[in-house]
Formats: sequence, C-alpha cells, structure tokens
Amino acid sequence: MTAKALLKTLDYAILKPEASMLDIHHAAEKCRELGVGCLCVKSCDVKFTAESLADCDTIVVAVVGFPHGNTLPALKALEAQMAVAHGAEEIDMVINISALKDGDTEGVTDEIHAVVTAVWPNPVKVILETALLTPAEIRKGVQCAIKAGAAFVKTSTGFSTQGATIEAVQTMLTAAKGKIKVKASGGIRTRKDAETYLEMGCERLGVGNIECLLTERELQKLLATE
Amino acid sequence: MTAKALLKTLDYAILKPEASMLDIHHAAEKCRELGVGCLCVKSCDVKFTAESLADCDTIVVAVVGFPHGNTLPALKALEAQMAVAHGAEEIDMVINISALKDGDTEGVTDEIHAVVTAVWPNPVKVILETALLTPAEIRKGVQCAIKAGAAFVKTSTGFSTQGATIEAVQTMLTAAKGKIKVKASGGIRTRKDAETYLEMGCERLGVGNIECLLTERELQKLLATE
Repeated sequence: MTAKALLKTLDYAILKPEASMLDIHHAAEKCRELGVGCLCVKSCDVKFTAESLADCDTIVVAVVGFPHGNTLPALKALEAQMAVAHGAEEIDMVINISALKDGDTEGVTDEIHAVVTAVWPNPVKVILETALLTPAEIRKGVQCAIKAGAAFVKTSTGFSTQGATIEAVQTMLTAAKGKIKVKASGGIRTRKDAETYLEMGCERLGVGNIECLLTERELQKLLATE
Repeated sequence: MTAKALLKTLDYAILKPEASMLDIHHAAEKCRELGVGCLCVKSCDVKFTAESLADCDTIVVAVVGFPHGNTLPALKALEAQMAVAHGAEEIDMVINISALKDGDTEGVTDEIHAVVTAVWPNPVKVILETALLTPAEIRKGVQCAIKAGAAFVKTSTGFSTQGATIEAVQTMLTAAKGKIKVKASGGIRTRKDAETYLEMGCERLGVGNIECLLTERELQKLLATE
C-alpha cells in the first residue's frame, strides 16, 4: 500500500483535554501537507479546525459525547448538529456504554438514530469502546449501529484501558456482514498495525500520530511533492 | 472528626463509563444507609438516581462536560439544565481545559457563568483538572470560577493522570481567599487523606469508595443505628 493511499484512510485525532489551539493549528498544517483524509477534533475546536482546513481536502470530524458517552440522547444529537453547523462533515459519537452493558439495545439504537437523524446525510461513526465490552456486547453494539443507520462502527476513544485489538476488530467485521463499515482506532502505532487492520477489512483508521506510520523517505517525498 | 460528620461532607461518585444501573442502585442504598451527603452521577443516570434517593436526604449531583470539558458553553448550560430538571440539585462541570491553558480566561469565565445562570440558584462546582494545570493556571481557574459566581472549585475528575494533591488544594485555597469553597477529589482513599483536606479548609470531598474511609466498628455502628 502506498503512503498516499494510507494517509487517505486516516482520521488524525487531536483529542486530549489539554490540546491547545497551537496543537490544532499544527495538526491542520500536517493534514494539508501530507494529504490526510480527516482531522478529528473536540466539539469546542470544530470551528477553528474547519477554518484552518477551508482551503484543502481534509475533512473535519467532530467527536460527540466524548469520551465517556454519558450524556443524554437529545444532547448528543444537539452536540452533533452544532458541530456540523460549525463545519464538521462527519460525527464520531460514543454510545451509552453502560446502557449497552445493561442490555438496553433499544435505548442505544435510539440514541444513535437521534444523532444520525440530526446530522443526516453526514456520516456517523459509532464508538463502542470495545475494551469495556464482551464479544457478545460488541456484536449487539454493531447491530444497534446498523439498525440506527450509522455509517461506521469504531472500536475506541483512545482514552480507555485499551485501543483496537485484532480480536475486537474481527468481532466487529463479522457482525457487520458488510452492512456497516468498520474503523479501528486506539493504539495504532506502526505501519504494520495500520496495514493489518486495512487488510482485515477496516475502511478507516483513527491515529494520534502519523509520522510513526511512514518511513522517513516517504515523509520526505510527500513533503517535496507538495 | 466523627464518621457521621465526615459522611456528610462526601460526594460519593459513580462515574465510570461502564457503571451499570445496579451500581447506581447499590450506591444509592449505601448513601441512604450511611447518611452520605451527596451522590454524584453521570448525566444519563440522574433521573434514576433521583428516583432512588427520593425518600432520603442524600442530594443528587450531576457532572457536566465530563470528563474532558470539551463541549461548547451552550451545550454545558443545557446539559446542566436537563440534569436539574431530572432531579440533580448540584452541578459539577468540567472547564474547557485547553482554553484556560491558552490564556482565554474570559472564555472560561463565560462558560462557567452560562452554567451558573442556567441552573441558578443550584450550586455549581467547577472542576479544573489540576493535574493538567500549572499553579498559575490553577489560580486563574479559581479566579474565573469566583467571577462567574460558582459555589465551589474542585480539583479533579478522577479520570486524569492524577487526583487531588496537597499542593494543588493549597494553591486553590490560597487563590479562593474565602470567596469560593474548595472540593478535593480524586485519589482520596484513607481517613487521613480525607481529614487532611478537611483540616486544610476543603468543605467537600469527592470519593469513589466510602468503606476505606471508615473503621469496621464505625461502619457496623452506622448500619446498626439506621
């Protein structure tokens, strides 16, 4: 896989609570220079990010209910709507994790549907936080996301006990049956990690670092051809 | 300090993303049996918690913008308002940490004020997440909270790199100058921790475990006199 093709599959995430405007600015520069597919930011940073990326192809992704998924459905829908109004083109929402664990699949489907409807036709990715779920719960979460009309299911916020694993991603892909796309995120730190998930069938990768996925030669070439 | 008096100063927090309805139910039972001052829960759990505590003196506290403080001011205000509508009597909001670090004290004051106004006269506690701040930033955060009319400043969410420390609490108390109360939270796991913070001048403590603050004899006595 070429570096250029890999970069198009990335959601580069700047989500630490203490991430500054300067961090966002540098990330936007990097996305523009390298041709990164998407830049994923906090609700409060969407407007500035969208302005910073106005002149290039990188898409702004906003997280919603992040990272614990603990807000009410109506609030998640409104947060998503505000993000789109400020320039986000995709939404990565965290589900109510405890509701899924408590077996309330109807409630989880409803909250996803509320967000999907609020920002339609912008795609919604559904973060399950697989580190906190059993395989059966992961499967149920994928089914909720399909039923609610989401575009993707996503493994992780990057702020839980673990990020993506081969096992969790395989469980998601099997449950997805081609009806919903899968995004692996959290802990992807080598080119091999990235290519493994893409070869398995993931169509998007969430990463906190881009340089570690490229060789120095690729990086130089990308910056030179800008 | 008596166990009974200590328990009145506690905000018992059930905030893990995977915390179940059963966890909330047990926590509410414990608060009722022991006479705990407050039970602090996620936005999505406020209604159930308020119903569970309807027949006792324990107050429901709701967290807002939790734990990263990354939502927009209008959304934090609405989240707080919905929590109060569902039975919360106090709000613990997380500030926009990166805004404070970027020197935007006006923005931080405004968002706190938006929440204070939205739920007035219910008290608002302002979580600074001191682990991510310098002493100068902590002082600025306290000043924002005073200016915005908040009731308390609070050290930590319990989900960052560190909880309350003697140094951070002392910085907050000095900056508070008696104009705002101080709540220490995160990592309070012994009676000595708890009493130290109260003796320093804190008027509220956030804890994830109550039993570790009591002797077995105190616990038995409290349960017997119920």
